[in-house]
Amino acid sequence: MNLLQIYSRMKKDIAYVERRLEESVHTDHAMLKETSLHLMKAGGKRIRPVFVLLAGQFGRYDLERIQHIAVPLELIHMATLVHDDVIDDADTRRGQLTVKSKWDNRVAMYTGDYIFAKALMVATQLTDPRIHQLLSKAIVEVCVGEMEQIRFFFRTDQTLRDYLLRIKRKTALLIAVSCQLGAIASEAPDDVSAKLYRFGYYVGMAFQIRDDILDLTGTEKELGKPPGSDIRQGNITLPVLYALNDPVIRSDLLAEIARIQQLDGQTDVTPFLSMIRNGPYIEAADRLSARYIDKAIDSLSGLPDIRAKKDLIDIAHFIGNRSY
Amino acid sequence: MNLLQIYSRMKKDIAYVERRLEESVHTDHAMLKETSLHLMKAGGKRIRPVFVLLAGQFGRYDLERIQHIAVPLELIHMATLVHDDVIDDADTRRGQLTVKSKWDNRVAMYTGDYIFAKALMVATQLTDPRIHQLLSKAIVEVCVGEMEQIRFFFRTDQTLRDYLLRIKRKTALLIAVSCQLGAIASEAPDDVSAKLYRFGYYVGMAFQIRDDILDLTGTEKELGKPPGSDIRQGNITLPVLYALNDPVIRSDLLAEIARIQQLDGQTDVTPFLSMIRNGPYIEAADRLSARYIDKAIDSLSGLPDIRAKKDLIDIAHFIGNRSY
Repeated sequence: MNLLQIYSRMKKDIAYVERRLEESVHTDHAMLKETSLHLMKAGGKRIRPVFVLLAGQFGRYDLERIQHIAVPLELIHMATLVHDDVIDDADTRRGQLTVKSKWDNRVAMYTGDYIFAKALMVATQLTDPRIHQLLSKAIVEVCVGEMEQIRFFFRTDQTLRDYLLRIKRKTALLIAVSCQLGAIASEAPDDVSAKLYRFGYYVGMAFQIRDDILDLTGTEKELGKPPGSDIRQGNITLPVLYALNDPVIRSDLLAEIARIQQLDGQTDVTPFLSMIRNGPYIEAADRLSARYIDKAIDSLSGLPDIRAKKDLIDIAHFIGNRSY
Repeated sequence: MNLLQIYSRMKKDIAYVERRLEESVHTDHAMLKETSLHLMKAGGKRIRPVFVLLAGQFGRYDLERIQHIAVPLELIHMATLVHDDVIDDADTRRGQLTVKSKWDNRVAMYTGDYIFAKALMVATQLTDPRIHQLLSKAIVEVCVGEMEQIRFFFRTDQTLRDYLLRIKRKTALLIAVSCQLGAIASEAPDDVSAKLYRFGYYVGMAFQIRDDILDLTGTEKELGKPPGSDIRQGNITLPVLYALNDPVIRSDLLAEIARIQQLDGQTDVTPFLSMIRNGPYIEAADRLSARYIDKAIDSLSGLPDIRAKKDLIDIAHFIGNRSY
């Protein structure tokens, strides 16, 4: 079972959300239209909308209603990406030029602000105050996380806990909230939305760990950007933390990271990548990711055995093994 | 009558909002706390909260309820200022170092995102969906305006209409919405909130025109930043537009603006300031501002003659004449 097969069953509904996504950023302002559509077309897995749609099937599924959750969550994700690209000084993402490199930093900043504001505007079509409270709380955490990631750049003394809290805010929270709000907007019972929240949280943790692994093991063609982007900007990820805890390699690795930092990331990071790839660190990170996937699937126990449940399990397995 | 006297009558309530403002950005994250409180302490006239409180007196005034409007509106205003400082490359605002100059651009961007998110979180404590719909719509327009202002930098071919639409989005809308939502959150009748919206809109237009005039006529001590900041970043304001329409001065002024643009604003702008100050352009801009104040006050006719109405009129007059 792969993601495309699951998606193909939901093709019509995903296409509808995609249309609403495009409409949502419509504006008479030529440049904002261009930057927003550029982002849209850069694509992405649309994993948040898919989770909203699947979670919605545990209640009274109403596509028109839950697109008001699916669209904002994808928009919020996109807005954070544009702002991150400003910070990361990234020129490409998913093989496409970033807004900040095609236009400039200020255009990227304002495009992010605009998309974010549009996200809220779409969400306000739903009147259940819990939805807005949960959503805005999650967004605050995401923002704290954005700032937090700066603080930990090149910090080789950080703990596993620092890393896990960071990826929770960066990725897991919005996926958790996608599942939770898809259920709430469909009037599913509270224990159902709580279970789906936990599912999304664990899947999100595994998702980001896989992402961090791929940045170390993938090729430029697979990633749409050169491998080692994380360390070049100072982002210390799970396999690197494991390697730093290995006395055999620790001092060499510290020296290599210090070298990269000194050169502001503008250097060949092949030596660094080899050090990480040649040890058992990727494997260890993979094991933690797999444990999160197991926990995600466990969270679903007790939910009715509908098709969407099977799909969530399949997606979780896919995320645990994905190589792109 | 001056603003301080009006404020002094509302001192207790304003102090309460101020406390809630500070609490609203509270976070365990040391740097975000520092940047947010730095912004808080930079002060400002808190004109949006004051309008919310006054508008609230046209309904069932409940401070605890309407602070959930007053606080977010001031926070949203602050968030746009931080992001604008990134774009404007401003080192000081109100005589204080800006976040982007005390820290850096990425800290300023994320601080803005964070404050904005907190604004939403506070607002979601109110459950009337109209509030969120009106607020998010206004924010979208503000964002479009942010982008729009970039497009018009140094554009000497822009029309009066371009300028007015820009200051509407930049300033008048959020002030209009402050008045409107203060009334709505206090369950004032629809025609009352509509009148207050119009009042806020006209006052906001006059406010920004005065602001633009002061940047041309004020001293560094009065402004907390050097005069001529607008033209240095390419912002063509009302008196300049009037001057550009004067055939006597037009070609000299075009040459001077071209010179400033060529030097990226890094030049003495005294010649430019003299050209504007020595003609009737400031006066003409003042007249338009005064007309907006008249319209603002007209908008209040038909509202009950409570103390808040008199205060709104006094504030409008104050704004029409303010020299700082």
